[in-house]
Amino acid sequence: MDWLSAPCVPPNQVMIELASLRQTQLTKPPQALGDLEALAIRLAGLQGREQPSIEQVHISIFAGDHGVVAEGVSAFPPAVTQQMVANFLQGGAAISVLAKSLQANLEIIDTGILEALPAQKGLVIQRAGAGTANSAQTEAMTSAQLQLALQAGYEAAERAHASGADLFIGGEMGIGNTTPATVLYCALLKLSPDTMTGAGTGLDSAGIAHKTRVIERILQRHAACADDALAWLRCAGGFEIAALTGAYLHAGQLGLAILLDGFITTAAAVVALQVQPALKDWLFLSHASAERGHTQAIAHLGLQPLLDLNLRLGEGSGAAIAVPLLRQACLLHNQMATFAEAAVAGKL
Amino acid sequence: MDWLSAPCVPPNQVMIELASLRQTQLTKPPQALGDLEALAIRLAGLQGREQPSIEQVHISIFAGDHGVVAEGVSAFPPAVTQQMVANFLQGGAAISVLAKSLQANLEIIDTGILEALPAQKGLVIQRAGAGTANSAQTEAMTSAQLQLALQAGYEAAERAHASGADLFIGGEMGIGNTTPATVLYCALLKLSPDTMTGAGTGLDSAGIAHKTRVIERILQRHAACADDALAWLRCAGGFEIAALTGAYLHAGQLGLAILLDGFITTAAAVVALQVQPALKDWLFLSHASAERGHTQAIAHLGLQPLLDLNLRLGEGSGAAIAVPLLRQACLLHNQMATFAEAAVAGKL
Repeated sequence: MDWLSAPCVPPNQVMIELASLRQTQLTKPPQALGDLEALAIRLAGLQGREQPSIEQVHISIFAGDHGVVAEGVSAFPPAVTQQMVANFLQGGAAISVLAKSLQANLEIIDTGILEALPAQKGLVIQRAGAGTANSAQTEAMTSAQLQLALQAGYEAAERAHASGADLFIGGEMGIGNTTPATVLYCALLKLSPDTMTGAGTGLDSAGIAHKTRVIERILQRHAACADDALAWLRCAGGFEIAALTGAYLHAGQLGLAILLDGFITTAAAVVALQVQPALKDWLFLSHASAERGHTQAIAHLGLQPLLDLNLRLGEGSGAAIAVPLLRQACLLHNQMATFAEAAVAGKL
Repeated sequence: MDWLSAPCVPPNQVMIELASLRQTQLTKPPQALGDLEALAIRLAGLQGREQPSIEQVHISIFAGDHGVVAEGVSAFPPAVTQQMVANFLQGGAAISVLAKSLQANLEIIDTGILEALPAQKGLVIQRAGAGTANSAQTEAMTSAQLQLALQAGYEAAERAHASGADLFIGGEMGIGNTTPATVLYCALLKLSPDTMTGAGTGLDSAGIAHKTRVIERILQRHAACADDALAWLRCAGGFEIAALTGAYLHAGQLGLAILLDGFITTAAAVVALQVQPALKDWLFLSHASAERGHTQAIAHLGLQPLLDLNLRLGEGSGAAIAVPLLRQACLLHNQMATFAEAAVAGKL
């Protein structure tokens, strides 16, 4: 696990300055392209070139099941995790449709769903168990399981980098996984389960009240984790969140920009940021999720969402929906004429 | 001008119901795709088919100059209007880059810039004058000029419809045009120049204060227009705003969905909505502009922006940036598997 603490690549400050200068020369009033200008400049720093681009996108969806569903915290049965993985592979899920339209690489990593699927194209089998243990009763994972799950993420980032990807998107599927994500937010950002616990796939208000109490019990049971982010990750779960954490940390180490999806992936980023605060340079946030608590969490992290469309699906879908914004930011930065090229007069 | 008051096509309620039903059957928790679900359902109603699509996009940019620039209301000189039109035609402007990436039809209509450009591919010459008159001194247009400018918009909508477009985007270029747009907002929505006047292409605070006083004078000079939206349009200008108004009204009459850009195009929509309130069914708002006043105006109109990225460029660029969201909404709606097709279990 030595790799976990390896540093991130530092952004290239010279390219940030050159890209900033280029933005002032393009045929538009200063700052008229708003946040897209800042995106292009940040990407120039991360990619180490004055004219960045987002062509190849790599999407890794990590799937895992959760022992804590025994506490009645989800509106859907756990069998849906495996059924949705099959749906991803058959092309019928939201992320399948989006990945195809973006011409992105899409891979699904089974980090520990209840019942394994047969080996098949597009599926990476790297199971740390058949679901985590119930974190309301015991620790969700052993140390060995945590290591396996983090390693699954490391290897996904390696594959993305080796394929020449310009952007890494992590997605997740795991019935019940808003519960461990909420535990991580509350434990690591010192937020209250009362304001952070949401409907997940669709609990009613009584269901949310029950889930809040379960989350409080989990927080109490594992209070000895204190400020140790990886200990909380091990005790709360799940495998897919640990894999996302490992993938994000290693993407930053490889110099690969990351586009966060929503509630679950941001919880993995919280853990990763506590391990390596400099990872923040590599994170872009696609959207503010409709899942209660996300807006509060991202405000704590100082992450600006690109979109706010009441999405709350997961699977990496929100990140995929935001990819065209990054692509357009780069195209505008690279292809617009300068005032000099177009013989357009400047400000009075 | 009889066509102005012709009714809009009514949305197809049966297709709205069928599309709503389809959304409940797709493999995701209910409402998990948030605003994208509502977009697909609205488009189904507008396009009269259960599975809508946004393939061909038509972008008409209307350009015109403004006599009111003599009052010192803009940070850029009026020569820039013509220079930017040339830049659009040469492919160097933001909208040129975006239109190419969307494979959209892009046409520029000269509705009355100061000096005409030679006839060339991509340029429609339909001039109502060599810039409007100075609305701080007199009426910006004659009735005949207003009619010509509205007609230029009508014909753009006709061309879009004839080309099989699924979406109409109007853009504009006209140094000084935030002044007439602000006059229209204040006059027609009863808003105050103090809170509605912004920096345009980049005025400083003294410049904004001066522009506010000019706008107050224009409002007083033409107060006799009272609640007559077309009279205000004629007195405030400009040719490109009138053309946008005509284009939006006729797009609704032809049953062609409209994606509004930012501050200027929304002002044209305000005029069009006063002529034909049912046009609202056909309007989508791409973004909340960073130009001061836009957020207040769209709240008055009850229009929800898809994006909020501090854009304030115009040219139709904000609308072009939002097109992928409409496309993704349709793709997800049409291509995701249903629970039955994918054999995924429903809610507990």
